[in-house]
Amino acid sequence: MIPVILAGGTGSRLWPLSRTLYPKQFMTLQGDGSMLQATMKRLEGLPKSPAMIITNEEHRFIVAEQIRRIGEQLSALILEPFGRNTAPAVALAALESLKLEEDPTLLVMPADHVIGDIHNFQKAVMAAKKSADTGKLVTFGIFPTEPETGYGYIRAEGVNARNKETDGASYPVAEFVEKPNLENAQKYLQSGDYFWNSGMFLFKASRYLEELGTFQPEILKACRAAMKQTSRDLEFHRIDKAEFEACPADSIDYAVMEKTKDACVVPLDVRWNDIGSWSALWEIGGKDQNDNVILGDVINYDSHNCYVNTSDKLVATVGLKDIVVVNTKDAVLVATKDKVQDVKQIVETLKEKNRTEYYNHREVYRPWGKYDSVDMGARY
Amino acid sequence: MIPVILAGGTGSRLWPLSRTLYPKQFMTLQGDGSMLQATMKRLEGLPKSPAMIITNEEHRFIVAEQIRRIGEQLSALILEPFGRNTAPAVALAALESLKLEEDPTLLVMPADHVIGDIHNFQKAVMAAKKSADTGKLVTFGIFPTEPETGYGYIRAEGVNARNKETDGASYPVAEFVEKPNLENAQKYLQSGDYFWNSGMFLFKASRYLEELGTFQPEILKACRAAMKQTSRDLEFHRIDKAEFEACPADSIDYAVMEKTKDACVVPLDVRWNDIGSWSALWEIGGKDQNDNVILGDVINYDSHNCYVNTSDKLVATVGLKDIVVVNTKDAVLVATKDKVQDVKQIVETLKEKNRTEYYNHREVYRPWGKYDSVDMGARY
Repeated sequence: MIPVILAGGTGSRLWPLSRTLYPKQFMTLQGDGSMLQATMKRLEGLPKSPAMIITNEEHRFIVAEQIRRIGEQLSALILEPFGRNTAPAVALAALESLKLEEDPTLLVMPADHVIGDIHNFQKAVMAAKKSADTGKLVTFGIFPTEPETGYGYIRAEGVNARNKETDGASYPVAEFVEKPNLENAQKYLQSGDYFWNSGMFLFKASRYLEELGTFQPEILKACRAAMKQTSRDLEFHRIDKAEFEACPADSIDYAVMEKTKDACVVPLDVRWNDIGSWSALWEIGGKDQNDNVILGDVINYDSHNCYVNTSDKLVATVGLKDIVVVNTKDAVLVATKDKVQDVKQIVETLKEKNRTEYYNHREVYRPWGKYDSVDMGARY
Repeated sequence: MIPVILAGGTGSRLWPLSRTLYPKQFMTLQGDGSMLQATMKRLEGLPKSPAMIITNEEHRFIVAEQIRRIGEQLSALILEPFGRNTAPAVALAALESLKLEEDPTLLVMPADHVIGDIHNFQKAVMAAKKSADTGKLVTFGIFPTEPETGYGYIRAEGVNARNKETDGASYPVAEFVEKPNLENAQKYLQSGDYFWNSGMFLFKASRYLEELGTFQPEILKACRAAMKQTSRDLEFHRIDKAEFEACPADSIDYAVMEKTKDACVVPLDVRWNDIGSWSALWEIGGKDQNDNVILGDVINYDSHNCYVNTSDKLVATVGLKDIVVVNTKDAVLVATKDKVQDVKQIVETLKEKNRTEYYNHREVYRPWGKYDSVDMGARY
């Protein structure tokens, strides 16, 4: 089994902490290490080969240094010149893996998720492995706790998603559903037939490529061509830019999982969080007596249910409810908690205006996950 | 007539812009000059002697420089070692004025109010002068526009406070009322019998001292003693600290105006604002199409009715309603607009903790009203 870690996200909804040149998967948002490091660490003890990481070329030194710091080795560090979504990224990893082992099983994981219960996670992986060995394409389903409209849903057969007791089995997928509206999300939650789509998968490399070739032959073709021209530069695998440019962008869900007849789901009861927005960080954070999450030098007066994070000076709040305040050296964000998804609109504006606040911090989160006041300039 | 400008306030409700060592009256919050400079400027054209200013000893150089910059002379700059509220401050000025002229009329004005219509202001002053010449103690009443609970009220006789047409006359005061609750404030507003108490006054120096001697002889006695020991240091009048320490603290309203039988009110229709809080600055500020007041580098997305003021970096807001955000070099304030009065609670906390954010900015508003990045240390 080869872990395949997708570390290509931009994390724009966590601006101003997360920046295009230093996205959230490289930050320490919880616990000791970065999210990428935590993703590696939660594999310890599983029977596996060294992991592969797929990331953007711009982030190669950050990844290499973070991996070096935790004393890990990689099977490969594959660098994309630009993102083409998850289906091509996994295809690149699958093609590379077949050079290393005879049809390995791939455990595909985003680098920016939080998993609280590593024991249950590893149990589920081993259960999924049994199904993958029979040729199934396994997706991991999260027991839903609220009618979340920001996630895709998976309708499963033969299992109740409202009952967290599972027997380590996998269940046939009846249907993948895109992000629903609130009404449908409420129905899904009540029915007990639906899991949240975690974005984690497990399958044999050959089966993935087979199904990709059936449903999205263009992607497979472009990825094959891009991998043929791989140049190695130290430990970095650079793929062929021109060939990859021709590759259609598509998610693994759309391209393969929703179309294959061999999809199954393994329920995951692991205190999962995709840290998709500032409200998620409020949810998983330690609260004070007024249900505020506070990080840094903060004085609250009569404020409740707020997330306040400051890294460079005092933040004082008065009479706030359900507000997010994030202060970094070059920008302050103040947002209503139920509108935090729209932080990406701010990031879009900054990008259009080519502002430095889009690219990076004036101070920088160093690759090893420490906060540092050295100015590395607007671009690496 | 000698203008007497009270420049001893702390302006804690405008923290983090206003600081104990650089309070709001010395800042340029609107227009070209500081509030103190604007207070001086609005006297131009009136028949008067040079003004007196009473301020805290700590602010003497700021006052002197701001006055020098606008090319004005002062009759006196009286320095209090500590504040004892307005009744003693005016007594000190009255005693000093009697050394300069034969029973001058004093026009008492706080240094931190905004007056939009200077023509009407000067007309009202001249009307008040006629009453003062007959021995009356004149207070200026503001036509109320809403049931404000943060002001004192004045009940007048023979004039309708809902009708802004006045004949330049003064009217007998029936009653002074302390800050009312909302219910009473609404009654006052509807009745048409009540004006807001502006904190501006006009009377002969002798009459003020006479009434003070009647109603608060301790204050008069302490102020006389403190003024006897005045030492001149350049242009500064330092009063005797030990004698002044014995002086009871009291407001001019409590000590004299509410008790004298000779109080009268001159209505003032001048677009007055006491800039008592951040919401006042929102009210008088220029609004964008979403009714936000924006100062500095701000990007709003879906925010309404907000006041956002930043002096040192980008502030981005998402989905806010009725929120105040003020960012200075060493502190960020985020407050709900209808709770901004409680900003003083934050200032109290900072004072208790002896934090630098209480004393001054890391960067400093220079005495001449310009923003400057030179660090003058935590204390002048």
